[in-house]
Amino acid sequence: MIETPYLLFLGDAPDQLAAKVAIGIRDWRPENAVGQLRLEGCGADLGLTDLTLEQGLEAGAKTLVIGVANRGGVISAAWKEVLIKALEMGYDLASGLHNLLREEGDLVAAAQVNGGTLHDVRIPNVQYPIANGKPRSGKRCLAVGTDCSVGKMYTAMAMDAAMRERGLKSTFRATGQTGILITGSGVPLDAVIADFMAGAVEYLTPDNDEDHWDMIEGQGSIFHVSYSGVTMALIHGGQPDALILCHEPTREHMRGLPGFKLPSLEALRDLALELAKVSNPACQVVGVSINTQHLNDEEAKAYCAEVEARMGLPTVDPYRHGADRLVDALASI
Amino acid sequence: MIETPYLLFLGDAPDQLAAKVAIGIRDWRPENAVGQLRLEGCGADLGLTDLTLEQGLEAGAKTLVIGVANRGGVISAAWKEVLIKALEMGYDLASGLHNLLREEGDLVAAAQVNGGTLHDVRIPNVQYPIANGKPRSGKRCLAVGTDCSVGKMYTAMAMDAAMRERGLKSTFRATGQTGILITGSGVPLDAVIADFMAGAVEYLTPDNDEDHWDMIEGQGSIFHVSYSGVTMALIHGGQPDALILCHEPTREHMRGLPGFKLPSLEALRDLALELAKVSNPACQVVGVSINTQHLNDEEAKAYCAEVEARMGLPTVDPYRHGADRLVDALASI
Repeated sequence: MIETPYLLFLGDAPDQLAAKVAIGIRDWRPENAVGQLRLEGCGADLGLTDLTLEQGLEAGAKTLVIGVANRGGVISAAWKEVLIKALEMGYDLASGLHNLLREEGDLVAAAQVNGGTLHDVRIPNVQYPIANGKPRSGKRCLAVGTDCSVGKMYTAMAMDAAMRERGLKSTFRATGQTGILITGSGVPLDAVIADFMAGAVEYLTPDNDEDHWDMIEGQGSIFHVSYSGVTMALIHGGQPDALILCHEPTREHMRGLPGFKLPSLEALRDLALELAKVSNPACQVVGVSINTQHLNDEEAKAYCAEVEARMGLPTVDPYRHGADRLVDALASI
Repeated sequence: MIETPYLLFLGDAPDQLAAKVAIGIRDWRPENAVGQLRLEGCGADLGLTDLTLEQGLEAGAKTLVIGVANRGGVISAAWKEVLIKALEMGYDLASGLHNLLREEGDLVAAAQVNGGTLHDVRIPNVQYPIANGKPRSGKRCLAVGTDCSVGKMYTAMAMDAAMRERGLKSTFRATGQTGILITGSGVPLDAVIADFMAGAVEYLTPDNDEDHWDMIEGQGSIFHVSYSGVTMALIHGGQPDALILCHEPTREHMRGLPGFKLPSLEALRDLALELAKVSNPACQVVGVSINTQHLNDEEAKAYCAEVEARMGLPTVDPYRHGADRLVDALASI
């Protein structure tokens, strides 16, 4: 668990795109962010109040979150100065960077001296169990995709938000570093040792109230040969009661795999459901989430209508149209 | 790569069963074993010449292989004495134990002083790539199972041996610690970080002669919820041209999962083939390997005949009947 609220460190991010993690926190857990801290030359602006470390503390911040990708995989001297000062002032640090905080001697020393914690969310800090496959109480929904990066995290986040707005019981369950930083906890599934993947997902989605839903962030795709093992562990470890199919209709080949065409939504539906039924025979496919960012309003509407007619499942872009119809679809389970 | 030949250390193994790794080496790579070294009270006997460390060296041994499971996860003082002496005499050590050689300070020190290598084969020692899915030259055969521990390693080993007996090009590709110790190399797949599993399998089975077969050791089962992610990575990373279905007909539930029934061979055939075609559209299911250890000769023969008639695929127990008919089935690919 990362202590909230956060002060969001944007460093010298060249542009808004580099601040993806911070944007996610602002959009999905605005109550977790007291403000932003930018260095000279920062090209990103979240529209939050600019705060110094001192002002952040006064506003109640517990953790300085590195909400930005760094350049060239090196934590620069300019960043270091701020990070060390933050530790000296009593902040914890949290990061999803590839180069780990815990591998920087000066940060480790400053954390030890000041009793701060370094959260490297790419690295598991729990010894996960082997999955046991035992049915768990409560309900679980998993977003599965025709490909990587088609909006699975967004879909689960949006459904979780819509559930909670209705006063229903729901928890977003993060399985990647962005989701973990946004919510403060989760499992960095792609960094877990193979034998413990499904067990990590069981650990992430434990017994719960019968009317509680876990909205599990998907990873990879069962059709993406680089990462399908991770997806498989999510499907079997997550024991989903409901699957949401996620798709980006303009993509010409699987992400990073020029030789591989995307599967149809029908192929995803059939294969994911067959696999899911191994761990939960009652699993159902309940809806379709389309990432329409490369379509105009007209095209997006037409595409969703076409898929909905073809597949007989509520089909929306939760970013454009809201997630309400997907949440409605859970009511029947 | 572990240097061969080996002297096989049986320690104080309580019985033959505890010496499973050493038995595998004796059975599959007898040329790799110059003899066995047993301590007082050892209840295992491979029928190899009993040698001291000195005699092992004279016979050409390069590596002392711990061919036995230890008790309680502790390397005892009695073992330590022998292992340190071996390092001092110039042996390397190799082990598949859960408690690692490299975590024993006195072994590390002795290895450093004497220039020896400690091989912990449960732990990857390579930074594997992310899988790229590119087609590779040469042919690959993967054993897939209805469950864990149904004879997948044995099947691949037996097919590899039969291929080489015929003068055909074949390499057994180990994916678990026993196979790695037997052959001296491989990938400990269940210990690989999730994101790199499929890449590790690609690394293990690189481009080769067009008439060369990799016989890939399977792991887990696509129907075993604890380990299916590992199996998935093998199917997609291995790009198999041929699948062999493996089954143990007397098992009452999935290994370690009392609530889960075994799938039918037909269900395994259909699902494994569908998944395999994602990475290799030409993949075929070519045969069935039955582990008949709990059947008598009559029952074993009848069971295989029944499956063969039902599925239209050559069906044998390679341990009882030899692997020749499975190897014959590869000829058509």
